[in-house]
Amino acid sequence: MSYTAPTKDMLFIIRDLAGLTKIATLPGFEDATPETVEAVLDEAAKFHGEGLAPLNAAGDKAPSSWHDGEVRTTSGFKEAFRQFGDGGWQGVVHPTEFGGQGLPKLVATPCIEMMNAANMSFALCPLLTDGAIEALLTAGSDELQQRYLPRLIAGKWTGTMNLTEPQAGSDLALVRSRAVRQADGAYKVSGTKIFITYGEHDMAENIVHLVLARTPDAPEGVKGISLFLVPKFLVNDDGSLGARNDVQCVSIEHKLGIKASPTAVLQFGDHGGAIGYLIGEENRGLEYMFVMMNAARFGVGVQGIAISDRAYQQAVAYAKDRVQSRPVDGTAKEPVPIIRHPDVRRMLTEMRALTEGARALALVAAGYSDIAHAAADAETRAQYAAVYEYLVPVIKGWSTEMSLEVTSLGVQVHGGMGFIEETGAAQHYRDARILPIYEGTTAIQANDLIGRKTVRDGGATARAILAQIDDTLAALAERGANAACRAMYKRLSAAHTALANVIEFVVAKTRTDANAVFGASVAYLKMAGIVLTGWQMARALIVAIDKHHEDEAFYGAKIATAEFFANHILVRAPAMEAAITSVVGTDGFLALNDAQF
Amino acid sequence: MSYTAPTKDMLFIIRDLAGLTKIATLPGFEDATPETVEAVLDEAAKFHGEGLAPLNAAGDKAPSSWHDGEVRTTSGFKEAFRQFGDGGWQGVVHPTEFGGQGLPKLVATPCIEMMNAANMSFALCPLLTDGAIEALLTAGSDELQQRYLPRLIAGKWTGTMNLTEPQAGSDLALVRSRAVRQADGAYKVSGTKIFITYGEHDMAENIVHLVLARTPDAPEGVKGISLFLVPKFLVNDDGSLGARNDVQCVSIEHKLGIKASPTAVLQFGDHGGAIGYLIGEENRGLEYMFVMMNAARFGVGVQGIAISDRAYQQAVAYAKDRVQSRPVDGTAKEPVPIIRHPDVRRMLTEMRALTEGARALALVAAGYSDIAHAAADAETRAQYAAVYEYLVPVIKGWSTEMSLEVTSLGVQVHGGMGFIEETGAAQHYRDARILPIYEGTTAIQANDLIGRKTVRDGGATARAILAQIDDTLAALAERGANAACRAMYKRLSAAHTALANVIEFVVAKTRTDANAVFGASVAYLKMAGIVLTGWQMARALIVAIDKHHEDEAFYGAKIATAEFFANHILVRAPAMEAAITSVVGTDGFLALNDAQF
Repeated sequence: MSYTAPTKDMLFIIRDLAGLTKIATLPGFEDATPETVEAVLDEAAKFHGEGLAPLNAAGDKAPSSWHDGEVRTTSGFKEAFRQFGDGGWQGVVHPTEFGGQGLPKLVATPCIEMMNAANMSFALCPLLTDGAIEALLTAGSDELQQRYLPRLIAGKWTGTMNLTEPQAGSDLALVRSRAVRQADGAYKVSGTKIFITYGEHDMAENIVHLVLARTPDAPEGVKGISLFLVPKFLVNDDGSLGARNDVQCVSIEHKLGIKASPTAVLQFGDHGGAIGYLIGEENRGLEYMFVMMNAARFGVGVQGIAISDRAYQQAVAYAKDRVQSRPVDGTAKEPVPIIRHPDVRRMLTEMRALTEGARALALVAAGYSDIAHAAADAETRAQYAAVYEYLVPVIKGWSTEMSLEVTSLGVQVHGGMGFIEETGAAQHYRDARILPIYEGTTAIQANDLIGRKTVRDGGATARAILAQIDDTLAALAERGANAACRAMYKRLSAAHTALANVIEFVVAKTRTDANAVFGASVAYLKMAGIVLTGWQMARALIVAIDKHHEDEAFYGAKIATAEFFANHILVRAPAMEAAITSVVGTDGFLALNDAQF
Repeated sequence: MSYTAPTKDMLFIIRDLAGLTKIATLPGFEDATPETVEAVLDEAAKFHGEGLAPLNAAGDKAPSSWHDGEVRTTSGFKEAFRQFGDGGWQGVVHPTEFGGQGLPKLVATPCIEMMNAANMSFALCPLLTDGAIEALLTAGSDELQQRYLPRLIAGKWTGTMNLTEPQAGSDLALVRSRAVRQADGAYKVSGTKIFITYGEHDMAENIVHLVLARTPDAPEGVKGISLFLVPKFLVNDDGSLGARNDVQCVSIEHKLGIKASPTAVLQFGDHGGAIGYLIGEENRGLEYMFVMMNAARFGVGVQGIAISDRAYQQAVAYAKDRVQSRPVDGTAKEPVPIIRHPDVRRMLTEMRALTEGARALALVAAGYSDIAHAAADAETRAQYAAVYEYLVPVIKGWSTEMSLEVTSLGVQVHGGMGFIEETGAAQHYRDARILPIYEGTTAIQANDLIGRKTVRDGGATARAILAQIDDTLAALAERGANAACRAMYKRLSAAHTALANVIEFVVAKTRTDANAVFGASVAYLKMAGIVLTGWQMARALIVAIDKHHEDEAFYGAKIATAEFFANHILVRAPAMEAAITSVVGTDGFLALNDAQF
């Protein structure tokens, strides 16, 4: 199946919802003119659609394979990665000082969506590299930056994140890997890391592992974790590659999906210790890793949007092609393409509404991140940073959870053919299933949303977002002559009230009845996802109504999609409020003993 | 992973919700005493848990394979099928006159759930055989019945359903296979059939294909379809096997799940015509096939319940074993088994609530079916038949749709391990995905629910079911001192009102605005599923409260599960009403042109 990037929708959101013009006035982002952005997106659409998309099914059929410590990626991946690097795609968002393009996250994000829609298994490699780059930029010494960043950003080397160990999954306090300081200031790292995406592969000359480990005298728990850079090959002072480091890929996993992406078990230090370099200060590893993780979590949210769009495109193509049954309204005597059947149309619209809403929220958040980084005024930066950080777990959690719904609908539209692997719809269903798990499960995102993002500031950021929704409601009310606006006003205002109630519930109860709040945590996250993506659809609706005459096909579809979102998706919010606020920590399912399960 | 049949919950439902005592008074069912039923279920639990469950993962790893027209099933399946036949499991529900046990459907259904939970790929073979038996019992001549039924019921031969052709999936009007009558009264059948479950295999001596085809002078569309019995091997008058018939297995499919179950492409009549025998009368094939399909659809609903329970059991075992993170309420300083974490508990309870609710509805419906078949009084039979038939598409559609949610949660409980195939959770997620597709997609079930089951009698049956819910509400109100009862009363009464409104919407609009109703058809089906399974949980709750002192662990869990169902699942119903009644056939997503997708 081919993939055509939704450039038009992306540009619409970038310009009309995320405020490109304003972001292009920020210091450093002056090059992000509408013309440049459009050119970048067109080029990205071409590269990812033509270069990467055709390899997606091939990667599923002939996954990465392990032999004697080496991993061979799917035929074609190595060459594609070379082209990816040569095209400058690894560096879109990264600083020009190290060879990047220095474009806003608002512009990089659609490129990342395209890459993931084209080939999610491939895209994981650059995604993890982005994380390593972010961590080095945040906390790496000048020397580490100079030695590693240019080639990471050029797409010559790749990066990994080494957090998980067999006994330490979501709970990083249990990390046991060791790092012992040597006389020369380097460390010897040892331990076993599992679930390491692209932990070993043949696409790049070197792999830069970022590894969480403990020094001998470190405190227990998460406060005793340090972050190390452990290269696959040591790097000489002249930048050439030196000796092979003491890190071995012991095996790769046999997975449900993203099969082309090798998931490695890495053994560090079995032959005397892997040489590693401390990033930042000892015992602050988790803090730096959070920088990486926040970037990666946002990226995983974008993966959810990407795979949803790919599944949607494939379902639409099938629904236009497959002829079956006469229309229920009796308007034709012959069988018609199934896209004419109301339920197929409903499924496609549901897929599209969820995807477009999530895309809009992710891009608006990317714009907030740009302001948080580049605004001249510290208060503005802090304010946007707080909102962006609130949104990250919502985007990660909701965009990935909704991608399960969307890719499942994608299978369903195909009927029996959807269950046959050759069709390709099932691959998206399988690939998507990792998204609500890795980089922190949805429950971990929900914990972050509750603890650090809602309760820590007493609900202030959450309430500030709700206040913005009030403005949108007022704009909808002004357009009350339009039926779609009336529907949206009704559903969004009910959803807004429900979310406001839940936020107060969370703020009030987290300290007094933690079990109740965390027993409803995922529902809070999903509800925030629905309300905030619905809010973006409401903003899109307003623009679409005002500009309808400029492009009736595009804006007409946007109006219908937004109305669908209001009536079919936003309506879930009050039900979720009822569920969330019904949980009592000392009663019901929370009070059963283990044996009762 | 092992499987332990939920015999206790099954017996509870059979006795306290489905009214075994009353059913055992019906003519022919006198043997179904509580003791016999318990003995049958215990024996079934043993056979399926020990004999079939261990082969489930093996079938996924080493699926059925095709070579030169022959299909070899997974090692162990042939022997398991022999034991299955010898144990009399194929005949539980079938007439004693042909060698069956003649037990009520109420008793056979838990056995079918166990078989599917143990090994869904295996279970498909007996499930399809059941359908063939039903069709022969309904419309087969005495001669066909005598020649084929005893060995089908003994589990010596197996049956198939041949409906689908490449151009005829959901739309059977497009069937093109041909059948030409010969001088001896037999027919020569030719054509291509696809998606034929167990269409070829090595587990039985003979395969009895039931095939839809058209005679040369048949009218167009579904009114010109006849049903034929086409054996793989012809059967001599003495019952011995004769010549190989002209039906070849051309290939089997490479599928997302249920990989051990061969899905065949069958070619009939490439060498002069396959010999087939007319079942019943010409041009009434669809009518007979509906008998088979109704049995099979109910069975597929039970598959959804079965795989949900299997996924639940696996998730519970993992959650009790996996230690990770300290409790959020600060009650321990050390990491605890993850079942102690509120969100894991929420996921497990959601899985369990959905599964138990669906099981209760299926078993209650099985009891209705028994009354519809065996009651002395014609009016009683007709009344129960109408309710049962209303419930069949709901059970098929909802139990399978909810199984996607449950098996997905099953993966999620496992975190990263859930994505690794060796864990086994992913197999359930993949296997379940066929359930809302085969034997009629959820949309096809919804069409049946709307057209034949709701609108045809002007909503009478649907309203009769709603009236029964009123009785349950009254019983809940009497127990208002109990908090779970108060919650259930509140949620069930709101859900009841919502469903009543939707039924009136469907009755009023189907003829005047078909697009609107069918654009919301699946939502109506799911809503009916939620409300009716929730209603059964309410009935279970009432019994559990009244009998709590008899078994505090079991009834306490039932009370908590029912309360969860009320607050977390039934609450979805009013949201669905809002979505359904918002659809207008001439507007919004239904009015977009194809190019706008």
